[in-house]
Amino acid sequence: MKEVKIGILGFGTVGAGVVEGILKNGELMSQRTGILPSIGKIADLDIESDRGVKVDASLLTTNAFSVIDDPEIDVIVELVGGVKAAKDFVLRALKNGKPVVTANKALLAEAGRELFEASAKSGAGLYFEASVGGGIPVLRALRDGLVGNQIKSIYGILNGTCNYILTRMEREGLEFDAVLAEAQKLGYAETPPDLDIDGLDTAHKAVVLASLAYGAPVPMDAFTVEGIRGLSHREIEYADDLGYRIKLLAVIREVAGEIEMRVEPSLVPQDHLLASVHDAFNAVFVEGDVVGETLHYGRGAGRLPTASAVIGDIMEAAAGRDGGSAWLLAHKKLPIHNPQEVSIRCYLRLSLKDQPDVIAQVAHVLGKNNISIGAVMQKEQNVGEQVPVVFLTHHALEKNFVAAMKEIAALDVVDGEPVRMAIEDFE
Amino acid sequence: MKEVKIGILGFGTVGAGVVEGILKNGELMSQRTGILPSIGKIADLDIESDRGVKVDASLLTTNAFSVIDDPEIDVIVELVGGVKAAKDFVLRALKNGKPVVTANKALLAEAGRELFEASAKSGAGLYFEASVGGGIPVLRALRDGLVGNQIKSIYGILNGTCNYILTRMEREGLEFDAVLAEAQKLGYAETPPDLDIDGLDTAHKAVVLASLAYGAPVPMDAFTVEGIRGLSHREIEYADDLGYRIKLLAVIREVAGEIEMRVEPSLVPQDHLLASVHDAFNAVFVEGDVVGETLHYGRGAGRLPTASAVIGDIMEAAAGRDGGSAWLLAHKKLPIHNPQEVSIRCYLRLSLKDQPDVIAQVAHVLGKNNISIGAVMQKEQNVGEQVPVVFLTHHALEKNFVAAMKEIAALDVVDGEPVRMAIEDFE
Repeated sequence: MKEVKIGILGFGTVGAGVVEGILKNGELMSQRTGILPSIGKIADLDIESDRGVKVDASLLTTNAFSVIDDPEIDVIVELVGGVKAAKDFVLRALKNGKPVVTANKALLAEAGRELFEASAKSGAGLYFEASVGGGIPVLRALRDGLVGNQIKSIYGILNGTCNYILTRMEREGLEFDAVLAEAQKLGYAETPPDLDIDGLDTAHKAVVLASLAYGAPVPMDAFTVEGIRGLSHREIEYADDLGYRIKLLAVIREVAGEIEMRVEPSLVPQDHLLASVHDAFNAVFVEGDVVGETLHYGRGAGRLPTASAVIGDIMEAAAGRDGGSAWLLAHKKLPIHNPQEVSIRCYLRLSLKDQPDVIAQVAHVLGKNNISIGAVMQKEQNVGEQVPVVFLTHHALEKNFVAAMKEIAALDVVDGEPVRMAIEDFE
Repeated sequence: MKEVKIGILGFGTVGAGVVEGILKNGELMSQRTGILPSIGKIADLDIESDRGVKVDASLLTTNAFSVIDDPEIDVIVELVGGVKAAKDFVLRALKNGKPVVTANKALLAEAGRELFEASAKSGAGLYFEASVGGGIPVLRALRDGLVGNQIKSIYGILNGTCNYILTRMEREGLEFDAVLAEAQKLGYAETPPDLDIDGLDTAHKAVVLASLAYGAPVPMDAFTVEGIRGLSHREIEYADDLGYRIKLLAVIREVAGEIEMRVEPSLVPQDHLLASVHDAFNAVFVEGDVVGETLHYGRGAGRLPTASAVIGDIMEAAAGRDGGSAWLLAHKKLPIHNPQEVSIRCYLRLSLKDQPDVIAQVAHVLGKNNISIGAVMQKEQNVGEQVPVVFLTHHALEKNFVAAMKEIAALDVVDGEPVRMAIEDFE
């Protein structure tokens, strides 16, 4: 029996979950793997508050470096969050030759290359399953189970807060602001909520997924990012009429040797599995050239689900398994598909004046920009003088949509801001 | 760069898929992992037929042992199927100290303990991701990502043929025999189809899942097994009216320290993800005590999906990673929950004579056997003199259902064979 001593940096929600999981199932893990995990030290600025788990006071310290530099500690678990201090901690640990487990997607998205190079140089692994999809073992699936696949596409519902908001808007007919306010009150959304609802958290996770799928750290600015802030319930209702649900999707797709990467609210066909991912759950749909379509689903956040992923990584680090740093440095740079050249279908919702030729005027602008219309739905109810009209288009280039939307917004017959969202057919 | 030479036993559909995958993506895998897989030798009784992949004739042999005993071969891939010869091959390879990759669930279910003991003794790993769920990396998820979890339950749709038949019956309103005959014509079902439609193939895979989840080879007879043979379209229709779909489920569940294991057609609520698993796809729903609910979905069979899993295992074997034989031998024997004491809800469909007190008579028998009724649905259409009546029960013990069904079948007012299926609420 080999014992592995863990040093935890950051004794917050997830840190306490990791301690709870190890106290509960450490013995079971040792039967399974021959390795017994034990808590060596825990660093946090607050070592007084009760976290609901029993920890000997002698294990607690306010000095993170005293944990990182302790020769008795075998594996460092970084759960402090943020980028600056976390990066210092991780680099120092790797330099000390200690494997590091982290759940910090912002850190990986902002400083991935530097960290993986430090890991490759020192030979100490960097493990990050918990950074994407909480407890879902999806990074392992990409790296191990699907190692023999070229990844054709990844579609992810990666932010539990957004999915929770969208689910409640849909089920209860509520507007965005009302659900957000209640989610904040219940602790399901942070204050301020920007990182979640503006899509940045989803983008951080998508960066990690894309980096692993294609073997090079992807820069954050490779992604076009749009969140769900201010999404109207009307969109959800109209999408439903047309057979779709709205999800905040990360889309990573190989297009003729280049990688298309974007985060945006998208219409998903109701009979697709991703449309059935509700509440705070996450799911990652991965298509490989050999395996075909796969889906990986579970709780995307929270004390214990995230702890489950952290513990899996601790055991992997303890077993001396390669964390995959070389893999992530296999290529210098990824060929990124120009976002303006992305081909998508769109949902357009316009408020048009109630007069005879309005649809023709819009159709004319779309046609001029090489966008053909697949379906038009005019809702019966008028909103004052305006008629809400929804267009579903065929595939066209993003730049053509941008140009057309500018022209459409300037038409006299169009009131208010036109709404545009991508439709995903998973083809 | 390390090269790993693979010896393939059995050049059938999957064997050819493995060769195709390695020829296509071997270079990519070597960039990712530093290990270059190459085909060393292939053994099959038929070395003449064209498999649609380009293989140098000098690699082919009809003598499996010449591959197993070749010191140049690093990893043996067993794809011959069946139990007897396959077992001889695997044992000999392990004895030679060569890691073995297999997709053979029947072999693992019938002879798992012997094989894992041979693996543990020789130190050569036995890898079997492809034996369950085709390309879905679900065994890895259990072993690695979820290593810190006690497994509370597993619900699996594990047989693509059955799921394909059920999907077509449901979508097209067809009867079982018609769909089966067409599936056989199209090559989606084997002739004879017994192994699939009678649930045995599902049980083989469930044995592998349960063995890994609970750390001991599970004997086949621990499972009660019922297939979908002869399922009437009426059941699918009535289940749909009540908000359910019928799936052939493997259920593995921890109940008060014992393991409940069964394979049977079951009613799944329409809004559960497993109800949205269509056609030949497979899915495994796993609940862990730390991670909560997870789902793992993909193609459960076929040339390339299965090859994806085999290739993942080859790379793992090549990296010298432990296959988990010790894990599977952690316990001598699992405590198996007495099938008669299993607590389930049931769907009962009876054909009753069209007279006033018939429902009361059935309700009386159920009540006498401690089974309470949650809902009764009497369909308007009569079938001749008979009225189809469906009862949904609350939870009751299997032995009470057995006793009640015997009494009900003997009632004068009951015509034909009563139908009983489990309802799964995933609670």
